[in-house]
Amino acid sequence: MPPPDPSVRRPSPADLHMTSDEFRRAGHAMVDWIAAYLERVETLPVLSRVKPGDVRSALPSEPPAKREPFERWLEDIDRVVMPGLTHWQSPNFFAYFPANASGPSILGDLLSAGLGVQGMLWATSPACTEVETHVLDWLVGMLGLPDRFRSTSHGGGVIQDTASSSTLCALLVARERATGGASNDDGLAACNARLVAYASTQTHSSLAKAMKIAGLGERNLRLIDVDQAYAMRADRLREAIARDRTAGLTPFFVCATIGTTSSNAIDPVRAIGEICNAEKLWLHVDAAMSGTAALCPEFRPIHDGVELADSYCFNPHKWMFVNFDCDVFYVADRAALIRTLTVLPEYLRNAATASGAVFDYRDWHVPLGRRFRALKLWFVIRHYGVEGLQALVRHHVALAAAFESWVRADDRFEIVAPRPLNLVSFRLRGSNEENEALLARVNASGEAYLSHTKLGDRYVLRMSIGQTRVEERHVKAAWTLIQRCASRA
Amino acid sequence: MPPPDPSVRRPSPADLHMTSDEFRRAGHAMVDWIAAYLERVETLPVLSRVKPGDVRSALPSEPPAKREPFERWLEDIDRVVMPGLTHWQSPNFFAYFPANASGPSILGDLLSAGLGVQGMLWATSPACTEVETHVLDWLVGMLGLPDRFRSTSHGGGVIQDTASSSTLCALLVARERATGGASNDDGLAACNARLVAYASTQTHSSLAKAMKIAGLGERNLRLIDVDQAYAMRADRLREAIARDRTAGLTPFFVCATIGTTSSNAIDPVRAIGEICNAEKLWLHVDAAMSGTAALCPEFRPIHDGVELADSYCFNPHKWMFVNFDCDVFYVADRAALIRTLTVLPEYLRNAATASGAVFDYRDWHVPLGRRFRALKLWFVIRHYGVEGLQALVRHHVALAAAFESWVRADDRFEIVAPRPLNLVSFRLRGSNEENEALLARVNASGEAYLSHTKLGDRYVLRMSIGQTRVEERHVKAAWTLIQRCASRA
Repeated sequence: MPPPDPSVRRPSPADLHMTSDEFRRAGHAMVDWIAAYLERVETLPVLSRVKPGDVRSALPSEPPAKREPFERWLEDIDRVVMPGLTHWQSPNFFAYFPANASGPSILGDLLSAGLGVQGMLWATSPACTEVETHVLDWLVGMLGLPDRFRSTSHGGGVIQDTASSSTLCALLVARERATGGASNDDGLAACNARLVAYASTQTHSSLAKAMKIAGLGERNLRLIDVDQAYAMRADRLREAIARDRTAGLTPFFVCATIGTTSSNAIDPVRAIGEICNAEKLWLHVDAAMSGTAALCPEFRPIHDGVELADSYCFNPHKWMFVNFDCDVFYVADRAALIRTLTVLPEYLRNAATASGAVFDYRDWHVPLGRRFRALKLWFVIRHYGVEGLQALVRHHVALAAAFESWVRADDRFEIVAPRPLNLVSFRLRGSNEENEALLARVNASGEAYLSHTKLGDRYVLRMSIGQTRVEERHVKAAWTLIQRCASRA
Repeated sequence: MPPPDPSVRRPSPADLHMTSDEFRRAGHAMVDWIAAYLERVETLPVLSRVKPGDVRSALPSEPPAKREPFERWLEDIDRVVMPGLTHWQSPNFFAYFPANASGPSILGDLLSAGLGVQGMLWATSPACTEVETHVLDWLVGMLGLPDRFRSTSHGGGVIQDTASSSTLCALLVARERATGGASNDDGLAACNARLVAYASTQTHSSLAKAMKIAGLGERNLRLIDVDQAYAMRADRLREAIARDRTAGLTPFFVCATIGTTSSNAIDPVRAIGEICNAEKLWLHVDAAMSGTAALCPEFRPIHDGVELADSYCFNPHKWMFVNFDCDVFYVADRAALIRTLTVLPEYLRNAATASGAVFDYRDWHVPLGRRFRALKLWFVIRHYGVEGLQALVRHHVALAAAFESWVRADDRFEIVAPRPLNLVSFRLRGSNEENEALLARVNASGEAYLSHTKLGDRYVLRMSIGQTRVEERHVKAAWTLIQRCASRA
């Protein structure tokens, strides 16, 4: 065997990484790609037109053995990914609820990825915890929430991925309070109590999911009747609780919603809270969609009674220009939350934790690890300022009001539910099938994207206005499109 | 009142947003900042030296009313945030497990933020679902996992935030299988069975947390003895199951770990799997840390027996250069997972879902919403190629082997557990207090950061090698530092 040729240098593992210069070049290119995407997104068909399997069939069946250059990835983004996207950042996107994003938020998320710190403990990056606690305390004031949600009282806030997770955490703390911690220790099967939770028929499906996850069972969730505005009837809640107590069951939890998914209904939090306080039930307020509106004093009545709540959440990743994921969850009694979710194996012990002087956010949610999500929230607040955020919320609500007036002016249509804020629930006066066909035509056009719900037995179209770049011309164009599609019915 | 001056234009809401040009400029600056950070991160004290409250006290008590420019945010990153960071991306970070990141991953995450799509349903961005399914099928082959985890069989993979969430989901599906769905419907309190789960004494704390969350109770988790390598003793597992059956309890779930947190022990998955199959228990394999090693054929024996598992997870965000969060969760029977976690309110109904031809990933985990996390995983695989990833894993394992040999060559120290891969468990021959003091000195230097655990009653130092940019010189410097600090003991 010939001796190895010393001129053939074995590549070092360090050579495998992207160099700083490559990262700068590719990073600039990616930033430019995103800027160009956001400039032209309103010209793209909003709803993706691919068929199941189209995207996968355009991808190689095996992973690459060797390095592929950045330019090839970007080509595939244009060729394969783009046709497979439904454009949530399009100002013509009016479906579901918005997931609006913004420049400052993207920059904050980029920095979070670049720093790559993991904030499971205060000690594993104190700034990751303290900036989050601080900004969430700011938000208490910004939304007019009760001081008991501040970290400087006995409460505090934490960023979760979604409102589903916040609802689950609230349910778990309530479950432990109701069972004196026995569920965590011995399991529900060993507890005598049959726990029952309450919410309206319009409550988000995540509560039913959380009932299952928590081992409580979906059938132990009572769905309380709503009034004509689709808000929970407090009198019916009181009756249901009394009925369950008589039957020997243990009421323990109520979820009130500020901005239901179907029609944006606002539950009467004060009336519900008074019942919860009298009955000693945990009150969780799910303001995932509409909490943001409370930035504006004139919309702050939606929070009336929130000081009676044990927990509260809202989603800056819906309507506050913070890209997904960023749900904010507050509790009035953080000790109860921590007691419910704490773990402290030896390998996580450290002096700061032992001192009791810090928050270790691992004990405030399901996951252990966590990224620095507060950066994007912080950057958004600093870019817009409180007044800028208020102006945008007002703008969106005004656009929804205008859309509502146009619908009311066309006899073929009807408004199906009150419009407290930025969602208009409407339909053709006609059959469900006609409305379904209308929606299909609107969405097939690619010019706008709306989604639907059912209120009672009626198929209802939802015009949800909260995209970052939405202007009157987009809302106007969508209405013209809807009218045109209705004429062809 | 004078008439409004038409020359004073009321600012449009659109003016509040960052313009494309501003975003490009700020984006380029942020990319450059990150590049410079990663170039110099090894010169920074690894463990943050701030005291509790230092970061908060440097922030204004009230949010800004008006816009603050991007330059001010960056100033605060340097002034307030940087001193409060523990630098997970430093090549001198050897604590916990790595959370390694890379250029391609940061770019993928940036693109995910920029696109801002939300993939709760296939229909809400088909590419978000299909790229994920596709890349996760690639990984089945890359890691030598069984074909039954592929989406083309009855199984499939999904990205979760963390292994904690995967463990919870596995536990929930197993719970529903054991109760015939009665827990989801009626709750555990209505089920007669007392369910019991099993794992080793070395299993990650997230399993105990999941037992609590699922309503099963921490006391119904049996911690099985380990052998001298800290791996679960299958014989003791069998005995424990028999004992519980005799006592009228219902064994239902076993978690085997590939790479325990304390010492990287590898449980005997095949022996455990044979017991699970015979006893009809759900087997979940938690390979959060060490699954990545199976990229290399020579390390693939760690996966021996995984074809007997019902579910499996590993974390590309630990050791595969994908920034947090990215845990990959596989199941052999996706229908059972979906049945456990599905919700289908009217407002999420759509033609693609009704056709049954697509995956709606909302039913594969706790949250409803989800971002396009597959991009960063896809980019990492394309940048490094399979061979590049293999080379880096080998590099890290070789560095750990070298470190181990240096420890063995110094009589003052002892190796406390076998080193299957890239974690070295060692200690000074001496008291726990001496080891604790040694670790404190090492970490106070700022030159390296290690964490500890206990094995039996012994305080043990952990040298965890998996940072993206770690080279022999960093490991060598850390060992020199440890020796120096030991001399001062």
